[in-house]
Amino acid sequence: MTLILNSTEIKDCVKFNKDLIPIIEDAFKSLSLGKTVMPPILRVDIEKYHGESDVKAAYIEGLDSFAVKVASGFFNNPKLGLPSSNGLMILLDSQTGVIKSVLLDKGYLTDVRTAIAGAIASKYLSNPESSTVAIIGAGIQARMQLEALTLVRDIKNVNVWSRDIEKTHVYIENMSKNFNLNFQAFDNTDDLVKNADILITTTPSKNPLIKYSSLPRGIHITAMGSDAEEKNELDPEIIENCDVYVPDNQAQTMILGELNHAIKRDSIKNDTIFNDLGKVIINSKLGRKNHEDISVADLTGTGVQDTAIARYAYAIADKKKLGIIV
Amino acid sequence: MTLILNSTEIKDCVKFNKDLIPIIEDAFKSLSLGKTVMPPILRVDIEKYHGESDVKAAYIEGLDSFAVKVASGFFNNPKLGLPSSNGLMILLDSQTGVIKSVLLDKGYLTDVRTAIAGAIASKYLSNPESSTVAIIGAGIQARMQLEALTLVRDIKNVNVWSRDIEKTHVYIENMSKNFNLNFQAFDNTDDLVKNADILITTTPSKNPLIKYSSLPRGIHITAMGSDAEEKNELDPEIIENCDVYVPDNQAQTMILGELNHAIKRDSIKNDTIFNDLGKVIINSKLGRKNHEDISVADLTGTGVQDTAIARYAYAIADKKKLGIIV
Repeated sequence: MTLILNSTEIKDCVKFNKDLIPIIEDAFKSLSLGKTVMPPILRVDIEKYHGESDVKAAYIEGLDSFAVKVASGFFNNPKLGLPSSNGLMILLDSQTGVIKSVLLDKGYLTDVRTAIAGAIASKYLSNPESSTVAIIGAGIQARMQLEALTLVRDIKNVNVWSRDIEKTHVYIENMSKNFNLNFQAFDNTDDLVKNADILITTTPSKNPLIKYSSLPRGIHITAMGSDAEEKNELDPEIIENCDVYVPDNQAQTMILGELNHAIKRDSIKNDTIFNDLGKVIINSKLGRKNHEDISVADLTGTGVQDTAIARYAYAIADKKKLGIIV
Repeated sequence: MTLILNSTEIKDCVKFNKDLIPIIEDAFKSLSLGKTVMPPILRVDIEKYHGESDVKAAYIEGLDSFAVKVASGFFNNPKLGLPSSNGLMILLDSQTGVIKSVLLDKGYLTDVRTAIAGAIASKYLSNPESSTVAIIGAGIQARMQLEALTLVRDIKNVNVWSRDIEKTHVYIENMSKNFNLNFQAFDNTDDLVKNADILITTTPSKNPLIKYSSLPRGIHITAMGSDAEEKNELDPEIIENCDVYVPDNQAQTMILGELNHAIKRDSIKNDTIFNDLGKVIINSKLGRKNHEDISVADLTGTGVQDTAIARYAYAIADKKKLGIIV
């Protein structure tokens, strides 16, 4: 008896709201306390089609189910009129391995749990009165990260830069319909961040898009674009010189995140141990110490987030009696 | 548009037959020729419930789809009246990452492709006139390996040993209904193999069940039980002293298979390179050289087999218009 949920049903169950924040926070806390089994990511690269499929999975002690998640990015898809992202989550019974549910979310739950992690990073690391956010990128995460951020900070101004100024304008046009904020397009990242309290980077860039000298004091950066060896949004000197560096999971950011590039450049020693996001959630004193500090959250995406959001979606769908049983 | 198939439909599509042999052989050939992307296995261990979930995946060059497979073994399940094994396969489009099908096979396709790999090992490595098989174990694979073996060898006698003589008798009773063969129960593995041409080991044992000195000359062994670090069915001296050792995939057998234990005991150097099953299929001279040789196939189960059988099942289901589209 497996409950099959399609993406429409899943979107109906899971919308951005403050309830998601403690759910994802709890996942990070368990991860940080070692109360999880989270193996390294499995990745299938299909170079011929500029595609990759990642599998993440994590069991969280005490929970009666856990998720295995397949997330794909096939970057020729837009030329074929298809979205790049795809995927599903599978929810297994922790005690028996029985497959409780297949959530055919096409990547939606990954997008949501990624954006909520960004909001959590800003909640614990940015200055509380932050009102101006700079966003690099104009895709789904540029949209969702902003939406999630508004759950935790009273944002007034949104500065946007992307590689394609046309896409920046389309982003602003679309977002303006739902958010009564002061949007502004920028043609360079130096000006973009000059007055920003928070910077969110959301691109699959392989070369740094922002350098340390451009950053104003007091800024918090959430870098969520880099989730693969070759991806890199921040100049490694930012990791080297920032006052607080917080990985979602250091075992991953050393390989996949911004930290990877700082270690490769020898600006960070590879045996340095940082407080991860779960530790900062448990004890916020481990985050920013001063108003002028520059903080960085390096988010690569973790299996515990997938387990948390798959369980949440399933519980609501089950209650609403959505989906079909196979 | 994802095709959801349940286990009844899948069993209806995939039955033991000779057609499966070249399909799985082709998968091994591609693997051997390096025409695949097959990352290391992802494994979630849930010690509290004596459970494990493995994820395997492999892309085979030139094929328009590839599988990600979740296979679970939860070994307290029989006490709860549930089978230990569980799982599903997901078939993704190689070019776009779109999820073509979810095959809720509950582990059936894994069982079939594992048994077919055993048959392939015996086809290329056992003496052609082999007629007596010794089987260690009395579970699903003990049944399926025999069924698959009859596709490639004219088996007349089946010697059976398992840890529980009652289960051995139940196995023989059940198998006798479908196979007109001379079954015999044994209470020790020395006598079991004395006159055997082929030995198939199918248990999750953590300690060797058979030693080198018990083996008759000319025997071929297919060891398929060990698929995890701690599992071990053959005394490492068998790997050390046999004339032909053939892994399904050496990168895996060095960690998970019988080879693992031989390397740990230093009886095999860890830089020794063996011809794998794919190479033997391509050039059978790489297998057994003499009638009296002792050969061993060490099967840990590979993602390419999953991709091959998931594609096969999907093609038939699609033709028969089975399943539901979500």
